[in-house]
Amino acid sequence: MQNASSDLDTVVMKFGGSSVAEPERIRHVAHRLVAARESGRRVVGTVSAMGEATDSLLELASRVSASPNARELDMLLSTGERVACALVAIAVHDLGHEAVSFTGSQAGILTDAVHTRAKIREITPVRVLRALDEEKIVLVAGFQGFSRETMDVTTLGRGSTDLTAVALAAALGASCEIYSDVPGVFTADPRIVPDARRLARVSYEEMLEMAASGARVLMLRAVELARAHGVPLLARSSFSDDPGTWVHHGEEMEQPIVSAVTHSDDIVLFRLREVPGRQGAAAAVFEALAAEHVTVDAVLQATARMAEVSFSIRQEDAAGARLAVERMRSELGPVALGELAELGSVSLVGAGMRSHPGVAAKMFRTLGEEDVEVRLVSTSPIKITVTVARRDVARAVRSVHAAFGLGEDAAVATAN
Amino acid sequence: MQNASSDLDTVVMKFGGSSVAEPERIRHVAHRLVAARESGRRVVGTVSAMGEATDSLLELASRVSASPNARELDMLLSTGERVACALVAIAVHDLGHEAVSFTGSQAGILTDAVHTRAKIREITPVRVLRALDEEKIVLVAGFQGFSRETMDVTTLGRGSTDLTAVALAAALGASCEIYSDVPGVFTADPRIVPDARRLARVSYEEMLEMAASGARVLMLRAVELARAHGVPLLARSSFSDDPGTWVHHGEEMEQPIVSAVTHSDDIVLFRLREVPGRQGAAAAVFEALAAEHVTVDAVLQATARMAEVSFSIRQEDAAGARLAVERMRSELGPVALGELAELGSVSLVGAGMRSHPGVAAKMFRTLGEEDVEVRLVSTSPIKITVTVARRDVARAVRSVHAAFGLGEDAAVATAN
Repeated sequence: MQNASSDLDTVVMKFGGSSVAEPERIRHVAHRLVAARESGRRVVGTVSAMGEATDSLLELASRVSASPNARELDMLLSTGERVACALVAIAVHDLGHEAVSFTGSQAGILTDAVHTRAKIREITPVRVLRALDEEKIVLVAGFQGFSRETMDVTTLGRGSTDLTAVALAAALGASCEIYSDVPGVFTADPRIVPDARRLARVSYEEMLEMAASGARVLMLRAVELARAHGVPLLARSSFSDDPGTWVHHGEEMEQPIVSAVTHSDDIVLFRLREVPGRQGAAAAVFEALAAEHVTVDAVLQATARMAEVSFSIRQEDAAGARLAVERMRSELGPVALGELAELGSVSLVGAGMRSHPGVAAKMFRTLGEEDVEVRLVSTSPIKITVTVARRDVARAVRSVHAAFGLGEDAAVATAN
Repeated sequence: MQNASSDLDTVVMKFGGSSVAEPERIRHVAHRLVAARESGRRVVGTVSAMGEATDSLLELASRVSASPNARELDMLLSTGERVACALVAIAVHDLGHEAVSFTGSQAGILTDAVHTRAKIREITPVRVLRALDEEKIVLVAGFQGFSRETMDVTTLGRGSTDLTAVALAAALGASCEIYSDVPGVFTADPRIVPDARRLARVSYEEMLEMAASGARVLMLRAVELARAHGVPLLARSSFSDDPGTWVHHGEEMEQPIVSAVTHSDDIVLFRLREVPGRQGAAAAVFEALAAEHVTVDAVLQATARMAEVSFSIRQEDAAGARLAVERMRSELGPVALGELAELGSVSLVGAGMRSHPGVAAKMFRTLGEEDVEVRLVSTSPIKITVTVARRDVARAVRSVHAAFGLGEDAAVATAN
């Protein structure tokens, strides 16, 4: 006996660009959607553009204009997800199930009118709900919405189909499954640490710190939104039946002290000397960086009269940071700039370290034993990040991962 | 001094897929739109998908499903024109003019809900008019509309961007310029008849006959719509400044007796013998053909008791015609079928031949002198079509073109 459809669980399943890059993969996605439907759930799929489709459209636009109009760029880029969605819907029909695809505006994803980086304001999924009631599998084009003021198509920024998925799940009271080419969240990057373990569960807070410090499984904004609305998130593989990693409220769980080691290897360190030590100098530094949309990873400020400010940023933000320093010089007078590239960062993340003050000490001791020189440190209640030479990153990740017993072997050893 | 914008002439300019196949060509289209705007007109552009984009999308769909769902196919295919439109708008902005692109639904192109071959019901171009009043160049995605009943995207059939352009022109009280890779309508195909002349003007009726008999400059449905709404049509080249060919009401013009020779070389002749000569037999034949969407070019029916019916069709309709014959056999009993391929047709078109009965005689005499065997004849008040062997088509076109003095040389000779 089937329940009334409105009593059934609803799931939003999101598939990234690599999961729909080829017709065979699109058929595979359709199979997964159909399997979820046949298990009795109400199913919404949301997909990114196929493979490199968005890059191809951007390339076309750049060949037509050096600075493409933002409204028209949104009109252009939003087609990529529509193509992928329609193809998945066609594939579902081919499997004998009813499906219907909606654009962002048809799905009621209302945003502000800031083209190329719009923010979702509200979701009114009237057509989605009606189609679910008709027992259809619903596909929603990711990455895009619609401004009610201008009646124009908007996009939410690169990689934002995760955001579409979470926002839809919040509006539908659904859980959200994010499918990608990795089988979940790991204690470290398995390419660097062979015995890295898949985590069965992490808290939103840990996932936020991990996404901010190099883990690319889930988009930062999507995790923030899931946390704000309490949407249970499952990160899993499109290509296997591994159970994946659940991301949800940490309070429900027995917290391990540390959960994972993350890293990045594209860090640049800026060191400003002879910054006048007067009130507001540090503020001027960060205002100038924010004006250039530079995200700062870690900061060190010496407090002498002529202050020294060091901060680390991603390589991709280096040009913007140099512009910001020029601006500071015009405001604060001559400031000496030192720039150190070829750096990386290693972060230890764990909600349990809040109440365990010895974690940082153990991490530094481990790095010292490995002769890894630490350039800069930043901490939060659930994360410690060190900036190190790029050539030291892999060794640092492996040693910290082992020291905290995060690996498969360690888990087995502990169990014995 | 510029007039109030509402007093300015409005022009709808349509560019085909080859005119927007590459970024440089898109920039060229933008230049043409801007030039028209700078000449003081209100400008609406409508474009097809880039080059082979629609074929690529169809190919993707066919790899996902052998029989793609029609609603989803429309969702998929409509993206091609949106991409081209957004890119043209980006290129116009790059030239320092304001532009805005609209999807079919944003432009108010309302259709019925018959997916993949919808018919336009009404155009409510509220946003187009507002943008024109704001002195913007407006781009409208061709080939597509929107069903008010289902709230879904529809498409109008292959090659239907001409139809979008004419329908918009009718709704806006505008003239319509169709840009393609040929510089207008010619007295014959210049690849076959080197001295073929561009016609400065033809009537809607002549253009309909020419489009139906092989001239591919303008889409038949678009010419019908232009005629019904009295929209002046100009067919011209994207790649030159040639003045092109005006298509409008014949009554305004001094009519030449004949205007052009058209041809096609993909004709198949079906010959049904032993068709019972009872009332309704011919009707059964044509009903069966219509059920398979087969367009019949020419028909010959002998009127003995056991009738013989011959009809010519396009090669692409041959499979459908064979299906139709199977259906006839089940209804009328055994019918003998002869099929003759490797045929073509040659048509002489001219609004002036209505009042000149000698035209057919002169055409047959000319073909006879060239030893061209005529298999089938069909006529209308302004057209004579003969079905001939494919190998005779070029020779027949050249001889008829010369006999009626349609070429450049003949025009010069007459003028002397």
